[in-house]
Amino acid sequence: MSTLDDLLAPKSVAIVGASNDPSRIGGRPVNFLKLHGYKGAIYPVNPKYEEVQGIKAYPTLDDVPGDIDFTLVAVPARLVLDVVRQAVARQVKTVMIFSSGFSEMNEKGRGMQEELTALARGHSTRIIGPNCLGLFNSAIKFISSFSISFERHLPNPGGLALVSQSGAFGSHLQYLASTKGLEMTYWITTGNECDVHTAELIKLFAESDDVHAILAYAECIRDGDMLIEGLETARAARKPVIFMKVGDTDVGAKAVDAHTASLAGEDVIYDSILRQYGAYRPYTTEEALDICYAARPRIFPTGKRLGILTLSGGGGILMADAAAKIGLDVTEMPADAQAEMREMMPFCGPRNPVDITGQLYNNMGVLSRFTELMLDRGNYDGLIGFWTSAGGSPTVSPLLRKELGAGMNGRKNRLFIQSIVAPPEICAEYENDGFPCFEDPSRAVAAMAAMMYFGISFEAGAAQVPEVPSLPPLPSGQLGERETKEILAKFGLPVIPDRLVRSAGEAEAAAGEIDGPLAMKISSPDIHHKTDIGGVKLGIHGAGAARAAFDEIVSRGKTACPEARIDGVLVSPMAADGVDCILGAKIDPVFGAVVVFGLGGIYAEILKDVSFRRAPVSKTVARGMIEDLKGADVLAGARGAKPTDLDALCESISKMSIFAAAYADQIECIEVNPLRVFSDGCICLDALIVKRDGSQKKGEKDV
Amino acid sequence: MSTLDDLLAPKSVAIVGASNDPSRIGGRPVNFLKLHGYKGAIYPVNPKYEEVQGIKAYPTLDDVPGDIDFTLVAVPARLVLDVVRQAVARQVKTVMIFSSGFSEMNEKGRGMQEELTALARGHSTRIIGPNCLGLFNSAIKFISSFSISFERHLPNPGGLALVSQSGAFGSHLQYLASTKGLEMTYWITTGNECDVHTAELIKLFAESDDVHAILAYAECIRDGDMLIEGLETARAARKPVIFMKVGDTDVGAKAVDAHTASLAGEDVIYDSILRQYGAYRPYTTEEALDICYAARPRIFPTGKRLGILTLSGGGGILMADAAAKIGLDVTEMPADAQAEMREMMPFCGPRNPVDITGQLYNNMGVLSRFTELMLDRGNYDGLIGFWTSAGGSPTVSPLLRKELGAGMNGRKNRLFIQSIVAPPEICAEYENDGFPCFEDPSRAVAAMAAMMYFGISFEAGAAQVPEVPSLPPLPSGQLGERETKEILAKFGLPVIPDRLVRSAGEAEAAAGEIDGPLAMKISSPDIHHKTDIGGVKLGIHGAGAARAAFDEIVSRGKTACPEARIDGVLVSPMAADGVDCILGAKIDPVFGAVVVFGLGGIYAEILKDVSFRRAPVSKTVARGMIEDLKGADVLAGARGAKPTDLDALCESISKMSIFAAAYADQIECIEVNPLRVFSDGCICLDALIVKRDGSQKKGEKDV
Repeated sequence: MSTLDDLLAPKSVAIVGASNDPSRIGGRPVNFLKLHGYKGAIYPVNPKYEEVQGIKAYPTLDDVPGDIDFTLVAVPARLVLDVVRQAVARQVKTVMIFSSGFSEMNEKGRGMQEELTALARGHSTRIIGPNCLGLFNSAIKFISSFSISFERHLPNPGGLALVSQSGAFGSHLQYLASTKGLEMTYWITTGNECDVHTAELIKLFAESDDVHAILAYAECIRDGDMLIEGLETARAARKPVIFMKVGDTDVGAKAVDAHTASLAGEDVIYDSILRQYGAYRPYTTEEALDICYAARPRIFPTGKRLGILTLSGGGGILMADAAAKIGLDVTEMPADAQAEMREMMPFCGPRNPVDITGQLYNNMGVLSRFTELMLDRGNYDGLIGFWTSAGGSPTVSPLLRKELGAGMNGRKNRLFIQSIVAPPEICAEYENDGFPCFEDPSRAVAAMAAMMYFGISFEAGAAQVPEVPSLPPLPSGQLGERETKEILAKFGLPVIPDRLVRSAGEAEAAAGEIDGPLAMKISSPDIHHKTDIGGVKLGIHGAGAARAAFDEIVSRGKTACPEARIDGVLVSPMAADGVDCILGAKIDPVFGAVVVFGLGGIYAEILKDVSFRRAPVSKTVARGMIEDLKGADVLAGARGAKPTDLDALCESISKMSIFAAAYADQIECIEVNPLRVFSDGCICLDALIVKRDGSQKKGEKDV
Repeated sequence: MSTLDDLLAPKSVAIVGASNDPSRIGGRPVNFLKLHGYKGAIYPVNPKYEEVQGIKAYPTLDDVPGDIDFTLVAVPARLVLDVVRQAVARQVKTVMIFSSGFSEMNEKGRGMQEELTALARGHSTRIIGPNCLGLFNSAIKFISSFSISFERHLPNPGGLALVSQSGAFGSHLQYLASTKGLEMTYWITTGNECDVHTAELIKLFAESDDVHAILAYAECIRDGDMLIEGLETARAARKPVIFMKVGDTDVGAKAVDAHTASLAGEDVIYDSILRQYGAYRPYTTEEALDICYAARPRIFPTGKRLGILTLSGGGGILMADAAAKIGLDVTEMPADAQAEMREMMPFCGPRNPVDITGQLYNNMGVLSRFTELMLDRGNYDGLIGFWTSAGGSPTVSPLLRKELGAGMNGRKNRLFIQSIVAPPEICAEYENDGFPCFEDPSRAVAAMAAMMYFGISFEAGAAQVPEVPSLPPLPSGQLGERETKEILAKFGLPVIPDRLVRSAGEAEAAAGEIDGPLAMKISSPDIHHKTDIGGVKLGIHGAGAARAAFDEIVSRGKTACPEARIDGVLVSPMAADGVDCILGAKIDPVFGAVVVFGLGGIYAEILKDVSFRRAPVSKTVARGMIEDLKGADVLAGARGAKPTDLDALCESISKMSIFAAAYADQIECIEVNPLRVFSDGCICLDALIVKRDGSQKKGEKDV
């Protein structure tokens, strides 16, 4: 694996296809390198010129004297492979390919791209692109890009690193970031990612001391394990990762038809896994850049208690509404601190939001004490001040800043965001004092929530991961309900005891041995829609009824599916009432085994109220999955019902996740539906494993 | 009722408490009126001065010669009533009170405010405030406010009118609007609203030709009927109403304990009613102002089809994601138009988003044709273009604007929003061409969605409202399940037939006469938790079992509630399986009868998946209530189940709404739970009316 310096800090660069015209794709990088003062060696390569933009040019890469760390390729697609082979032969560390016409175009392009991948795999040279828009390292003024924005501006170096699969959108993001004054050391667009990809760059950025925050834009991830490694490295290093994931993936998950599969659209898997590993997923560029901006002071509160200090009651209510909606805790100030505030400012609203009112103008001196009280007595993890246009006034703002600064004295590890309407030069003064500024109060709240999200994730650190045992291979052939339940029971999941009866007489005998009413279901590897064909009978009382039910079930099965092999009928006791859930796992092509848990029933299913985690998970993580559900209160015992046995449930979720991880290479998906949860324990009532060979087809699973 | 001119366009103004010091509250308005050039008569009133800021002053209002249209009161609270009485005596049209110390302060203040209200009620003089921050009418430079922002700036007159209950926040909103270049003719803060209130102002603005869009910020509404009148007037006049509703109301709904009541928090009622009458509720100031801005060209698309034209595939995906999330329809272009696009631009993505790619720079001339194709062949209701920094470039933007303008030629009634990163002067050029501009693409999508929301609402117009008949008064005393069901059945709602049996013998006889198994429930006005005491038995088969069940139910009732009057047992046939819903109504203190519909069951209840409308509603509106539900697919027949009888359901919802409207003065709330819906028809299985006298207390309702 390369280092960040190998990729982004070359001492020499060759530009193949360099042009004398600084407005052309092959001319722009030469121009930018000169314009911004890159100190390394620049070798234009073009057989047509002796000199390119005043720099000596070479006919081919082979003609370049001395070492070449980095080679930029800006020639038509059909010429690219030859150039890359030359670069590999010269042991160039990194090749970047601007050229389009590869996998994004057609089959032929895909073939050429596969050759590029093979070249990179077989040698030490790394390849960025093809079909990308470039990169920069602003610390050394190294710009290898044809984005026209660098004619005007190169960001100052600083904590932010940006990786984007999209060239134009990555360019848009870096341009916006720089108009907003955000420092950025590294920027890279990865295009078709024939070799170097987003996950690797996140990992390299996470490891680099130069990087304090990572912004990523991606449509898919090529290496789930490396992404997770990168995210955990970033978390350990207390670096926020802001990950914009858009659109669908091209990875192409195979369609399987258990609910777990249909519920697990690619996007929701990405969403869950980004959250599981502490990355924040913004949905707009504005939100993404707001978070990068708010992270500049590198203060990440470790709790969700928000204090709001405001000049306007209305603004306070608006922010409190917004905070509550995001799940922040707008707890009240302690009574004695409220009393102290009221003594200083009789008309203030001292609860929280603390409405200091327009009276502040007459008594600015109390503000530092108000701030202190909120931090020390209110003990808020973060504060937001709402000062609107007063905060931007050239006369009021210095007083305000002085007071806020005094209140923060000795408490510089606490985050205090200011919502002000102010020109950039006044905002900069607040920023120099360590206060991020937002004009819109709701954006201030959202940014604070993101900082708390990171703080809590950094504090928690990586979750403990249970060990995955090595298990014997699954039995061959299709696995029906009976086989799946046996396998799960053997693995230690609680499964309803059932027995296969092969005759009416055996059914009658079973009824005699099982207490209470019975559930009877047809057992056949060929019949999946058991209910539809009348193959399920519930609440059977007594031996006679069991005998009759056996005959009826088998005869219905034969009528509905004359070709089906019928093993007999599964007889089990009726389970007690409880809350029906769905528990399962699917194997994701990017992230491997993913465990799924949700509430059962048609309503839950329509609302897709399910929670995902990369498997395996501990009981603690399983608990978080339950808490994720919108309908979690159903399990907590809503409306006077007894709470269900969450401990047993977490145990089952964790077990299922370990099972799925152990068999990730043999199964497509597994589903227990329902898993019934009681006030004491839980039990799998029906289950099915779909094996990886795909012997079951879409539409065959039934519950 | 006053006209807008009475309140906001006075020819003369007296300022009671006028100060020579232009920085004081009583001095600022005098200063602002002079500064901005108000042409009417200005009469400072202050016994201490001959002259105030160079204008002749008068000791009292009585001393002022000639007519006084408007009187501003800036004296301590204790002096306010006297001044207002003088103003009333002089038949001043409008009095505005800055002074604090009224209902927001304490009981005494509340008393003084009630006297103000009484004064306004008894005379032609209208009162704005007390405890408000002022108003302006920028068309005549009339400013009656002490907001310091008017020292710097008064917005240009133009289509927007703003009413805010909060002074500081209203000031923040108008200041922000003016920094963003939004024209605003009227701005008014209403404070404690002793007389003139938000709803009335919305109505006056809706009626005024000067106003094109209305922005409101309110914490509560004092007259629900007038608000609705105002909203319907605005809708008929095709004026968007952007209504920021925050926090809780002070109106204080009485707590009643049926689900309908506990589900119907104040906020959700406001939310539903604003939507029902076509107002848009933004949650942030940024969103509110974005919408005011996007409404400037007054183009409101009447459908949700969105076309996206983009330079960046990534940007297109981001916007398509955002649009889909808001519920817009990003339909594909027709195949032949795609072919035409591909002919012009071989590398373009012609579906939708239409990704014209960076190749555009080499062939700008195709853009007008692309635009035409999207409008004429794609038939989109609105378009968004994503041009990022290129759209803000001094060299590219004129070409872009020319092409976009040519494409829009003859199609000026279509809304085309541009997402560009550009300095204000370049944005202004687009705006002059009729294109609103947003830097952030997601904000462009949200603003477009809001314009479509208005367009669809304007097109639909006011809903038909069914007539409410005059009905006989409800029977006296408490109404239990039996009485409620009788009343509803008489009104024409489908109710499960039941009969009251008073002995085991009668129960046996009933069993003989009713087909199939029975449901038996204790009937007592004193027992509400029927299930908890074992007072409900379901699925009773045969005469003997019915006799036994009667005895058991009555004996359990006597044991659990020895003091209860027990009328007997209600016997009814067991209803067939179906989808259980909840249908009811509550009487809201602001808006009167509100009908409530949702899915039943504990999960639905926890998710509060219910829909509200102001009663009465037609079947068409009832249909919209069903479609509102997140779990609507449960009724549509999800997972192969038969669809339920939505027509019968709408009929019942409409009937319930008419019933509630007819009895709005006699009931607190009414609830049918469950209302079971079948593939053919629906039926009320249990029901309860809580009368307005409050004879039933919190916690007594049980199902």
